[in-house]
Amino acid sequence: MFKILKKDKTTNARIAELSTKNGIIETPVFMPVGTIGTVKSLSPFEIYDEGFKIMLGNTYHLFLRPGIDIIKKFGSLRNFTRYKGMILTDSGGFQIFSLAKFAKINDEGVLFMSHIDGETHFFTPERVIEIQEALDSDIMMQLDVFSGHEVSKEIAEKDLDTTINWAKRSMSAKRKDGNLLFLISQGNFFEDLREKSARIMSGFGADGYAIGGLAVGETKEIMFRMLTLSVSNLPENKPRYLMGVGTPEDIINAVSLGVDMFDCVMPTRNARNGFVFTSAGTLNIKNSKYKSEIGPLDPDCGCFCCKNFSAAYVRHAFMTKEIFSQRLLTLHNLYFYQNLILKIRQSIRNGNFLDMLNVINIQKPSSLL
Amino acid sequence: MFKILKKDKTTNARIAELSTKNGIIETPVFMPVGTIGTVKSLSPFEIYDEGFKIMLGNTYHLFLRPGIDIIKKFGSLRNFTRYKGMILTDSGGFQIFSLAKFAKINDEGVLFMSHIDGETHFFTPERVIEIQEALDSDIMMQLDVFSGHEVSKEIAEKDLDTTINWAKRSMSAKRKDGNLLFLISQGNFFEDLREKSARIMSGFGADGYAIGGLAVGETKEIMFRMLTLSVSNLPENKPRYLMGVGTPEDIINAVSLGVDMFDCVMPTRNARNGFVFTSAGTLNIKNSKYKSEIGPLDPDCGCFCCKNFSAAYVRHAFMTKEIFSQRLLTLHNLYFYQNLILKIRQSIRNGNFLDMLNVINIQKPSSLL
Repeated sequence: MFKILKKDKTTNARIAELSTKNGIIETPVFMPVGTIGTVKSLSPFEIYDEGFKIMLGNTYHLFLRPGIDIIKKFGSLRNFTRYKGMILTDSGGFQIFSLAKFAKINDEGVLFMSHIDGETHFFTPERVIEIQEALDSDIMMQLDVFSGHEVSKEIAEKDLDTTINWAKRSMSAKRKDGNLLFLISQGNFFEDLREKSARIMSGFGADGYAIGGLAVGETKEIMFRMLTLSVSNLPENKPRYLMGVGTPEDIINAVSLGVDMFDCVMPTRNARNGFVFTSAGTLNIKNSKYKSEIGPLDPDCGCFCCKNFSAAYVRHAFMTKEIFSQRLLTLHNLYFYQNLILKIRQSIRNGNFLDMLNVINIQKPSSLL
Repeated sequence: MFKILKKDKTTNARIAELSTKNGIIETPVFMPVGTIGTVKSLSPFEIYDEGFKIMLGNTYHLFLRPGIDIIKKFGSLRNFTRYKGMILTDSGGFQIFSLAKFAKINDEGVLFMSHIDGETHFFTPERVIEIQEALDSDIMMQLDVFSGHEVSKEIAEKDLDTTINWAKRSMSAKRKDGNLLFLISQGNFFEDLREKSARIMSGFGADGYAIGGLAVGETKEIMFRMLTLSVSNLPENKPRYLMGVGTPEDIINAVSLGVDMFDCVMPTRNARNGFVFTSAGTLNIKNSKYKSEIGPLDPDCGCFCCKNFSAAYVRHAFMTKEIFSQRLLTLHNLYFYQNLILKIRQSIRNGNFLDMLNVINIQKPSSLL
């Protein structure tokens, strides 16, 4: 199910293939975030055509709107959205603890109030699997507890124990064949808890393992220390998914530690705010120097935006709040991320991934990409 | 330049071809409104691919943003926007009098304050031609005075005399060959002024004539009385363009009077507000009955939205404020309008336009379309 094709000699980077019932995912992979069924401003066809064969959907959001009964009528989230690729759905854990109006945990599950209409709902690990099976996600995630950035070790350990307990229950709850289930390694920012979490969960025989609770405000140094502890205690022969990360540099560094899968709103959210990734570094489309720029945003880019439109036109559309500008910039930034992933894979294949890693640790990664 | 191919036997409807330097426009024609260079939410390619070979640009908006110096760097608005079709630009008259913070007319021109940054600008008929020549519009419109809905006959006549004077000056100001210039017949809601305007301007030998100042709040009955007086006093061998109109019924009725060209924000603005034109009548996507509708918005529609997505998905995307929903609905409504125009042309060609006209005057036009 997870076939490692090549391991890098000097780092823990690897290229692999993950088989799902709807197709094979090459890793390392970046999954764009399609919260309610499509990446904001794009059509599901555009996402697929940019080379993204797997997209993220959000269980919390989809449960609230349109609701699982609607999705059931279509048989799957894929049928509902018409996205031709594969879909990974997160469990909603992160949203419940960061977005919902309140969240009360007990051993059984978590009670929360919808941020949309204030209605209360109760999620258990079993219910979350059931919802994701109704979405027919290619990859389902367990319900976990996200404790936040600054909590005591006592709370962190209690939350971790709940997450471990829920991991076990999720494994038992799974009923459908073919839909993969990933567990989420947590442990907050405590080294021994990170180790404990990864070690215990590795024994549960899941289809893959995520590393959660990172990139939530901590320094990069702490993030990578925690990540290293998680990754090094997870099974080598299973896919490892770093949730919600990150910058191009973060991705290259995490790949070197042995991470295979990523998702992040960065390319898409930044696009909607006018922040653009280019081969010459990041730029802000609002900068007046692009006002009369006849050339594209990035002369070395082959995306729909850069192949067709001048920076001046994109800036004009952005400054006049034309929706089309968000689509252009989203397509551009996603193309940049896809290109980054292709270069990472290529460099592992060619045995020169270390060069790529060295470059980002000396200079801006943009000069490389 | 304007070749009438067929006249309807029982009404004043006709099909014709209008030649511009960038191509031939078949009439009757509906031109989508691309205020700042593209139709909101769509790419210029999508507009063209939906069959719209001519689009409207807005001189007032483009003058303010990005500014004419920027467009000059690209040689034309077409080059700037990458729209492959032809472009008609309005003169800005309507926006100056309806959108700008204030507008003071004297014989020479009009002083106004930008609604964007409060800066004052002075437009003369000559300056407006110069701007449109910089945009390199296929069809340019004269600067006119829009008096609004409820003014005295004295003011209406004064404004009309200014518009007539500016029409004359616009004709003299035109310098470039190939860019067509249309004059705008006004006259507010006074029958004799409508007649006077059309009659005098007909003598100026313009490339085409617009009817302006209608659909601004008056009843349909008054609108059509005024329109009839304008149209019947304009030359038969020149294109007639009814500005800012309208509903499908309005368009069919106006075609029967001899109008050739239309523009309106209705299909596009309605789309963004969730109002959808279908062969079974108009619908509001917010209606909960579409919540679990597996079929498309309109089973008889062949647009990108209806061919690919369920009404339930479109509603879900709309209710969750996904930008993509606006694009889907805009494409759908424009497809409906394009289809309407094609049916009008076909019925004139086949000699049964009267049937089409009769149907809309007895029942909802939607049942026909």
